[in-house]
Amino acid sequence: MADYPPAVRELIAALRELPSIGPRSAERLVLFLLEETKGTKEHLARSLQAVGAGVHPCGRCGFYAEEELCELCRDPSRDPLLWCMVASPGDVLRIERASAFRGVYHVLGCKLSPLEGIGPERLPSGTLLARIERERPREIILALGTDAEGEATALYLGQLLKKTATRISSLATGLPAGGGLEFADSVTLSYALAGRREL
Amino acid sequence: MADYPPAVRELIAALRELPSIGPRSAERLVLFLLEETKGTKEHLARSLQAVGAGVHPCGRCGFYAEEELCELCRDPSRDPLLWCMVASPGDVLRIERASAFRGVYHVLGCKLSPLEGIGPERLPSGTLLARIERERPREIILALGTDAEGEATALYLGQLLKKTATRISSLATGLPAGGGLEFADSVTLSYALAGRREL
Repeated sequence: MADYPPAVRELIAALRELPSIGPRSAERLVLFLLEETKGTKEHLARSLQAVGAGVHPCGRCGFYAEEELCELCRDPSRDPLLWCMVASPGDVLRIERASAFRGVYHVLGCKLSPLEGIGPERLPSGTLLARIERERPREIILALGTDAEGEATALYLGQLLKKTATRISSLATGLPAGGGLEFADSVTLSYALAGRREL
Repeated sequence: MADYPPAVRELIAALRELPSIGPRSAERLVLFLLEETKGTKEHLARSLQAVGAGVHPCGRCGFYAEEELCELCRDPSRDPLLWCMVASPGDVLRIERASAFRGVYHVLGCKLSPLEGIGPERLPSGTLLARIERERPREIILALGTDAEGEATALYLGQLLKKTATRISSLATGLPAGGGLEFADSVTLSYALAGRREL
């Protein structure tokens, strides 16, 4: 049975290494790339190389940077003593898009997860404590999510950071914006009740 | 509001040029590529460049080739006088996967489409007639699909090729394999009735 030329098969294989790209999607993308004449292939190849060669974790907070420090750590208008701790670099922009935080970040890089064998010794606590020692933040807001891993990590870090005399807080849990009670599960409702605010 | 570094934004933009990749999918793919350390970025970049530089239409049939002729046209075990005419290079492998055709192909490149402004003058009839003149095929099987464009193109080519004294046939229309009558639409059923075969 005939097949595509080797270079085409190799591109299909490379695309299949991406998440949620199966054999059919990969073939469809390759057929598009073979037909297009606007330089998408070259644009994509160049961008991949630029990201591979030029993007690395920010030396201070761990977000993506092309220089030594990321855009956020270089911004003098941000409060360097108010930190927001997130699990992954992608979470930084999720918070940024809320336009409600003007401090700096600390990307932890992982969460505690007994199921995946990530115990306290795998958390980069040393790096975190050294940065706290050096920069002495006023407050650290934990934004690690409300899944079991996020809550376990927050609990552990709360204990660990007690001795640093930094104020530790955590994002509020409660009803998400824009929906009636019928869209909230019972655990969320119990959090929302416990965290109720006086009007 | 902060954003990814320029190189990352550029990669997101390049991925969004692909079909059915929206802003969220592109961001998810980029976050994967930023975290992966197995060389997927480099593999993909190299493959894209190889395809861009090395893959072109076969000089005889128009399928994808890395040498002057494609794998199919170079295969001496295939019947060079039995042709299958398809609309696009991707259709060649769709036929090949049926393992039921041992001739060679002719990729037309487009179908007649009044809606998209593709009239008979846009069909590469000259190339086709020149190849027929040169190679004198015994039979040409039209496999252009049963949509309006495919049927119009088949009708037009049937007329055009009458004078070449080549036998022209077309793929059978009827019930698809593996399903009861409840899955066939009424047009397909009428084709299946008209094309019924004696047992």
